Amino acid sequence: MEDGHALQAEYTDAAIRVRYAETDQMGVVHHGNYFTWFEVGRVEYCRQLGLDYKRMETDDDSFIVVVEASCRYRRPARYDDLLTVRTRLTESRRRTMRFAYEIFRQDSGEQLATGETFHVICDRLGQPKSLPEKYRKYFVVTAPKPSGDGRKPAKL
Amino acid sequence: MEDGHALQAEYTDAAIRVRYAETDQMGVVHHGNYFTWFEVGRVEYCRQLGLDYKRMETDDDSFIVVVEASCRYRRPARYDDLLTVRTRLTESRRRTMRFAYEIFRQDSGEQLATGETFHVICDRLGQPKSLPEKYRKYFVVTAPKPSGDGRKPAKL
Amino acid sequence: MEDGHALQAEYTDAAIRVRYAETDQMGVVHHGNYFTWFEVGRVEYCRQLGLDYKRMETDDDSFIVVVEASCRYRRPARYDDLLTVRTRLTESRRRTMRFAYEIFRQDSGEQLATGETFHVICDRLGQPKSLPEKYRKYFVVTAPKPSGDGRKPAKL
Amino acid sequence: MEDGHALQAEYTDAAIRVRYAETDQMGVVHHGNYFTWFEVGRVEYCRQLGLDYKRMETDDDSFIVVVEASCRYRRPARYDDLLTVRTRLTESRRRTMRFAYEIFRQDSGEQLATGETFHVICDRLGQPKSLPEKYRKYFVVTAPKPSGDGRKPAKL
Repeated sequence: MEDGHALQAEYTDAAIRVRYAETDQMGVVHHGNYFTWFEVGRVEYCRQLGLDYKRMETDDDSFIVVVEASCRYRRPARYDDLLTVRTRLTESRRRTMRFAYEIFRQDSGEQLATGETFHVICDRLGQPKSLPEKYRKYFVVTAPKPSGDGRKPAKL
Repeated sequence: MEDGHALQAEYTDAAIRVRYAETDQMGVVHHGNYFTWFEVGRVEYCRQLGLDYKRMETDDDSFIVVVEASCRYRRPARYDDLLTVRTRLTESRRRTMRFAYEIFRQDSGEQLATGETFHVICDRLGQPKSLPEKYRKYFVVTAPKPSGDGRKPAKL
Repeated sequence: MEDGHALQAEYTDAAIRVRYAETDQMGVVHHGNYFTWFEVGRVEYCRQLGLDYKRMETDDDSFIVVVEASCRYRRPARYDDLLTVRTRLTESRRRTMRFAYEIFRQDSGEQLATGETFHVICDRLGQPKSLPEKYRKYFVVTAPKPSGDGRKPAKL
Repeated sequence: MEDGHALQAEYTDAAIRVRYAETDQMGVVHHGNYFTWFEVGRVEYCRQLGLDYKRMETDDDSFIVVVEASCRYRRPARYDDLLTVRTRLTESRRRTMRFAYEIFRQDSGEQLATGETFHVICDRLGQPKSLPEKYRKYFVVTAPKPSGDGRKPAKL
């Protein structure tokens, strides 16, 4: 524990209210927005573990750059839906990390989408670098808890 | 003339094809996107006059910052419409400038929207500064041509 | 009172956490996003008064269409800032309504931007219509409270 | 040939000029925008083959819904870059289709990103359906031309 934050978490949840601007003429959310929501999930993952990502960029010249992103859409999200973005660190190396995401509708609990992003740590010029030592403790992959803890296991 | 560019123009036109992602569930373009299109119009205004706005930021630390923006929506733009953004410099001072915009549908010639933006020249820290001397020639307000030249006068 | 909601409010507040995707290369939020935030403010205004805007569209074929929008930018919003969008109904007629907005940074209380939107009630085909009778009670302009109530009066 | 359009093409190219609004504070394009560009590529693929996707939605109640999307980012795209989105149909079945994309910088020819999307044909309620017979001719996978035709083969 540090400042009241757990340094590791199996996953963290962020709440998203779907904006009107995020829909398209199909009447549901445009698929591109899910990647912005995954990013909101990553930021909340950092915040809940006690890492201020903003300062990691400004003070330590370390950016978590996206080099791969994917999403599988299962059910549409709709205007004004209240969603949960569940974010999980699934891989962590000196210069790279991988996150997995699930998006749920809060009222029904339905899983709407799953996704993944893969990242390289870079400096502000875009050159790969090692994650500074002081941040390593925040990026430790936690084995998923065994079932039976009352939490629905993530299906990725 | 300089490098084949007129240094002044009554207005410049930029073409926009409406993207699916720009629509919302009302079945027409979401109103926020028009401000992005105005920006496309400003960039084309600079390019057509021979000013490389990208270098104005990087080499001369001068940013044309938006401090006011407005739009009046007359008819909806729709997915896949081919539009013209007509951009006109309407005011130019040492530290400020104002642009006016009209958006037309190319096939029908209908005016869909009009708008305005007001800008302050700032450095990268956001401090107001004078527009560097060498850029002044690009920002000279041209009196609208008298009617009878075959071009529909802009109604702002 | 109805279902625990006040039918009228001087203003309502909505919280926004600035997303990384909302910034641009100037290092601050791109100006176009404020209009999306104003929209979030309008939706919260409706929700806090007990009006489900989603059903107003689907069940009563009544859309609050934006016909004018403007914003004045005073100080930049930055990535990860926690903001308040304060929304106030300033004009209400049978077929039209006007909202005013203020955006504050929560930690400093600084006002970052003010804006306005003007709306016409339309059916799904975009034809103007009167606001259905049953919704009128939600759109009553409330005179600003006299000062001395401990709330900072909005300066628009 | 039909109306001057080839009914099949190894790939089609669409031009994109990077917008200021598409950058983020890292100084390069935000990764979410590439999915919007892929969509621009799909629309141009349809247009260049003579298919009006807009009418496919409105007249034939057939939507090409995205169910999976992925992107691999190799080099950053920057403000004002002129890009090519190269789109290729790689799989086509009665109810599904898959597209692959490459994004190039036009001046240097550098490949910036590659991606894929997988789609199910749905009606306006989101129910899967077969692609109407009259549209099948537009969705025929073409074997890549042998090298030696002077066009750089796509590397996906």
